[in-house]
Parts: sequence; structure tokens; C-alpha cells
Amino acid sequence: MTRIRFQRSLDELKENLLVMAGLAEQAIQRAIEAYRVRDLSICDLVSRSEIAINRLERDIDQAALDLLAMEQPMAIDLRFILSVIKINADLERVGDAAKNISDRVRNMEQMAVADLPVDIPRMASLAADMVRKSLQAFIEADADMARTVLTMDDAVDTMNRAAYKALTKVMEEESHLAPQALNALMTARALERVADYATNIAEDVIFWVQGADVRHHKSLKTAPDPHAMG
Amino acid sequence: MTRIRFQRSLDELKENLLVMAGLAEQAIQRAIEAYRVRDLSICDLVSRSEIAINRLERDIDQAALDLLAMEQPMAIDLRFILSVIKINADLERVGDAAKNISDRVRNMEQMAVADLPVDIPRMASLAADMVRKSLQAFIEADADMARTVLTMDDAVDTMNRAAYKALTKVMEEESHLAPQALNALMTARALERVADYATNIAEDVIFWVQGADVRHHKSLKTAPDPHAMG
Repeated sequence: MTRIRFQRSLDELKENLLVMAGLAEQAIQRAIEAYRVRDLSICDLVSRSEIAINRLERDIDQAALDLLAMEQPMAIDLRFILSVIKINADLERVGDAAKNISDRVRNMEQMAVADLPVDIPRMASLAADMVRKSLQAFIEADADMARTVLTMDDAVDTMNRAAYKALTKVMEEESHLAPQALNALMTARALERVADYATNIAEDVIFWVQGADVRHHKSLKTAPDPHAMG
Repeated sequence: MTRIRFQRSLDELKENLLVMAGLAEQAIQRAIEAYRVRDLSICDLVSRSEIAINRLERDIDQAALDLLAMEQPMAIDLRFILSVIKINADLERVGDAAKNISDRVRNMEQMAVADLPVDIPRMASLAADMVRKSLQAFIEADADMARTVLTMDDAVDTMNRAAYKALTKVMEEESHLAPQALNALMTARALERVADYATNIAEDVIFWVQGADVRHHKSLKTAPDPHAMG
């Protein structure tokens, strides 16, 4: 494989990971929309997304493995491919979290609507922002942008803790609302996990970009490119 | 690096992963012991384990990356190293689950002891068994043993669903026990996640061993070993 073809394969891997990210983000948005309007038909869409996400995860893993096996890439490309493998696994888990939320919505279907002390749409929008931003940091190889994701995680953690406190109070004091409060609490927790996965992705981006920096400092960038021989 | 030195590095990687697995399993056992006897000093041990687990995770990742970068291993060794990277991430998440359980114990400290309709120690012992068995399958490269882990996961899922149902009933009918019931419910959920991580590990073992099988069927095993030249 020539360097140009190898580069094209890396670009294709990146493209597929972005499709994966788009699916995962959409799954979260749909799950929250289903939660907000209690629409089981949207839950069905989330379940279908999950199947697509799981399939794409396997395809990306296999493509990454093939590139590693056939090309034996050097340090910088190796780190990139390993980051893809890790980010891929985290995006699959975002899809799982969306599925968990839509399971909560199915569970809520027969329950009376309750006004609860938690702003799930706001938490969801923050968590989805983090996923989007961590992927943007990946596309642009921007470690600084990745670092902003880490600080956003603190905000989601704080919201989750506040939700936990307020919702357990509801459970104790208004036990007829306990099932609804529990569903809200588990939805908040799923969103906090999504924020954690975005944080993992941001950390992988930092790992990858800093690897690039290290390489740069060692002036390997000016060394002959072994792939040019391919 | 000679083939013998490379093989020694792979063995060392495996040894370190087993240490990681031991720490993760111990963290879960300690967290459940803390839960059972409500002992905050055991929670402190779990927190310390988590730090050790996170550090070892980074070391193993770095060692795996170095082997990939320096040795450019062929298919079978490549699959092994990638499995190590994935199993390593799952074991770190087992450590996180142990930490989550010990946070529940801290939360419970001021609460009256309640007799709840859930057998947490039994769920924990099943989940810990799954982690142990998935790692044993890894050591022995035994895909059949890995497959038994997948069936054990169904049992844990069933227990978790039953716990969820029984504990939400407690919350509604005996609201003064809602905080305890919620802690039990979240502990059961953490254990269900541990079972999921063990399942992931088992799937990685199957992936790795089947890769070995594929290689075997293609008779590559009798082809010249490229590392012997190293």
C-alpha cells in the first residue's frame, strides 16, 4: 500500500468514526426527546440506532485492526489508530446510555406526569455538547478544546449530585411519586455517564495530540517517512 | 529485540494485566464487604485501590503501545495486544464500579439498617465470579470458558431486574425506607455493570482466540515466524 492509499484508509477510518459519533449523539437526543414527550415510537428509533451503532462499532474495529496488521504504522499513526479504537468503544457506550434512557421512558409510560426538581433536557444538552466538542477536538487535533470538555464534566457532575439529592427527597416525602423520581434519577445518572464517556474521548484526544507533540519535539517530523517507501 | 525478548515482554504484559484483574476483583469484594458490614474504613481501602488501578491502567496501556510501536507485531500477537488494551479498560471500569458501591456505603452511614428484598452478596459473588472466569479464559485462551461467562450474564441481568422491581415497590409502599432501597438498587445496578464488563472481557477473549483459530486454519502457523529474524 502506498503512503497515499494508507492516508486515504486513515481518512476513511476517521470518517466512519464521525458517522459513529453522529449516530451516538442522535441516539442521545432522540432518547431525551422521547423522555420529554413520552413518545414510545421515538424509543423504537433509539433501539434501531443501537443496532446500527453496534454494527458500525465492529466494522470500525475491524478496519482499525486491518490497518494495524497490514501496515504496521509508525508512532504517530499508531497512536491515531489506537485512539480511534478507544473512542469507538466510548461512542458505543453512549449508544448504550441512550438505550438505558429509552428503557426508562418505556417504564414511565403508565405513570402520571410529575413535575420533578431536575432539568433533564439541560443536563442532556450539556452532555451532548461534550460529546460533540470532544469529537470536534478529535477532528481538529486540538488538545486545548479537549481540555474544555474536562471542565464541562464538573458541571454535569454537580447537576447530577443536585438531582440525586432533590429526587431522593421527593421519594421520601411524596412516595406516590417515587417511581417517577427514580426514573428521573436514573436518567440523570445515564447522562452523567455520557459526560464521562465524552471525558474519556477528550482524554484520548489529548493522548493522541500530545504523542504528536512529543514526536515533533524529537524532530522526527523531518526524518524520512517510512511509509513513502510503501 | 529477539523473539525471546519479545515473548518475554508479552508475558510481562499478561502478568501486569493479571495484577490489574486481581486489584479490580479485590476492589469489588471489598466494596461489597463494606456494604455488608457498613464499614467506612473498608471504603477507604477501595478508594486507595482505585488510585492504584488507574495508575496500573496507564502503565499497561503504555507498555502495550510501546510493544506495538517498537515491534510491529504480526496478526496473532497484534490481536493479543489489542485484547490487553480493551480488557485493561474494562478492568478499570470494574474499579470504578467498586468505587460507586463504596460511595453508596458512605451515603448509607447515617441510615437505619433495613431488611430489603435483594441479595446483594449473592449478586456480587456471581459478578466477581464472572470477572475471574473471563480472566481465566484469557489466561488459558479458552473461548468455551469465555462463552460460559456470557450465559452467567443473563442470570445477573435477571437478578438485577427482580431487585429493581422489588425495591421500587419498597420505595412506594414504605417511603421511610426509600433512601436505603435506592442505595441497594444502585448497588445492584453497579454489580450488573461489573457483569457487563466481564462479558466484554469474555467477548474480547473470543475475538482473540478466534483470531488464533483463523490463523491456524490458514496454516500460517507453519509459515516462517517473522519475529525469529528480530
